[in-house]
Amino acid sequence: MKLNILGCFSASPRADAHPTSQVLTIKNRTFLLDCGEGTQRQLRRYKISFAKIKHIFITHLHGDHVYGLIGFISTMSLLKRKKDLHIYGPKGIEELIRVQIRITESHLSFPIIFHELSSKKPQIIYEDNRLTVETVPLNHRIYTNGYLFKEKPAPRKLLIEEVEKYDIEVSFYNNIKAGQDAVLADGRVIANKKLTADPPTPKSYAFCTDTFYKPDIVEQIKNVTGLYHESTFQEDNLHRCKPTKHSTAKQAGLIAKKANAGKLILGHYSSRYETLTGFKTEAETVFDNVVLAEDGKTIDI
Amino acid sequence: MKLNILGCFSASPRADAHPTSQVLTIKNRTFLLDCGEGTQRQLRRYKISFAKIKHIFITHLHGDHVYGLIGFISTMSLLKRKKDLHIYGPKGIEELIRVQIRITESHLSFPIIFHELSSKKPQIIYEDNRLTVETVPLNHRIYTNGYLFKEKPAPRKLLIEEVEKYDIEVSFYNNIKAGQDAVLADGRVIANKKLTADPPTPKSYAFCTDTFYKPDIVEQIKNVTGLYHESTFQEDNLHRCKPTKHSTAKQAGLIAKKANAGKLILGHYSSRYETLTGFKTEAETVFDNVVLAEDGKTIDI
Repeated sequence: MKLNILGCFSASPRADAHPTSQVLTIKNRTFLLDCGEGTQRQLRRYKISFAKIKHIFITHLHGDHVYGLIGFISTMSLLKRKKDLHIYGPKGIEELIRVQIRITESHLSFPIIFHELSSKKPQIIYEDNRLTVETVPLNHRIYTNGYLFKEKPAPRKLLIEEVEKYDIEVSFYNNIKAGQDAVLADGRVIANKKLTADPPTPKSYAFCTDTFYKPDIVEQIKNVTGLYHESTFQEDNLHRCKPTKHSTAKQAGLIAKKANAGKLILGHYSSRYETLTGFKTEAETVFDNVVLAEDGKTIDI
Repeated sequence: MKLNILGCFSASPRADAHPTSQVLTIKNRTFLLDCGEGTQRQLRRYKISFAKIKHIFITHLHGDHVYGLIGFISTMSLLKRKKDLHIYGPKGIEELIRVQIRITESHLSFPIIFHELSSKKPQIIYEDNRLTVETVPLNHRIYTNGYLFKEKPAPRKLLIEEVEKYDIEVSFYNNIKAGQDAVLADGRVIANKKLTADPPTPKSYAFCTDTFYKPDIVEQIKNVTGLYHESTFQEDNLHRCKPTKHSTAKQAGLIAKKANAGKLILGHYSSRYETLTGFKTEAETVFDNVVLAEDGKTIDI
């Protein structure tokens, strides 16, 4: 599971900072998470294939998370994409995009399937044979969801030498990987644990931005492998959190700690801070494994 | 008159190229011409004040000329702009922006005044005491106008030594600058040309993008000081001009020649060309003073 940070700063622009967008690669699938202005240039810069992106998840409809979407769509049409594109986001996102397509007289070369969200409870919105994606309702000035990506448990690992020792037929392998014992031709039963090893622990990633401090998400993201939690401010600007519905780096650390996260990734930094080190130091007062998101950085989950 | 090129490439994105946008500074006024995605970052990079921009002219509603507008507007609101912003562009531009403002639940801190255009004939759309701006109807796949900026003739230059020699009252200075002769207290008439010198010749700038080769614009832009004319292709791709409604560098040169332009600025390059030198060489086969637009370049008109 790999994360490419395309942009991780809050709305107020700086020449050297991009608004929120990131690419999550998981089990050979490529997901785009949020799409601030300039995302398509960042994808080019970091040589990430446009065509591989089939699902885009938008947390909320503030411009710094969504204004790059129409440009990305237009360019994929220029590149003559044919495959469906799925876009998940708050109710209103379809109108936002369709109006722009109509007024700019664009004729898209591919279909877009919008999945508009309005529930305030967590729901599974994507599922395939390897993973699920569920919404993590957040508390911001506008309807907002984080997204939780969870790998499904992989099949048990076949111990090939053991399996061959007992001369088990290949057609039984899948059952054994699924956890069944093997029954030999002579009636002997071989316990599954003799034939298989534990698979790797399923990984998970929670993308939580933008939000006011919301400890009730902890239960849903418990034991998450990687947690991206916004930290617009540091504690010196705690008083700004309530009116703007943002969090501090310390609060992000507290969520990571309560959730027993493997790793905390900070981002959505306010441009009032000259450097990022203060965010890391502050979160580390409550949680050990803190990584700063930075434009262009690749992070292993 | 000074031109800052923020972006000058056609739609297909490259990591190192920006779509169309430029800033024209003329008589202390700052105009933004087109606003492709990423324009606000380019303004930051080249340290151009957002607040000084009071009038934005959009040629047409293709994304590579307008997708940066909503982000620019949002940021100015974040910066708490109060002054009116005037936006000139094709019919539909108001809906394009207002829908995005509504769906992103933005509350702008300043009023936008839209000036929607639909006439297919040239019209003066802006006028103040120093200059006029008129539309230059172009021929593209969608309704498109170029814009012609024309300084008004400046008042004649007062020759202070001469004026003081005749002891002319200060209250008459404006009349003299306007071209009147002076009548002295004793009845003598002093010819204006003894008291004044010619003012500098008024300058003009025509921004013509995107368009198929359209020689009938020549009459309107005759003797223009600076002409920006799109050159998406070179002659090797002449066959692409008709279906896409674009021009070659040579055609841009021909327009500059027929119009007796002072200077030709090329731009809107297709990303199929690795370097830009071929555009210049080709235009120079028909016109002498050719400048290549390049992202970040400043050009004196």
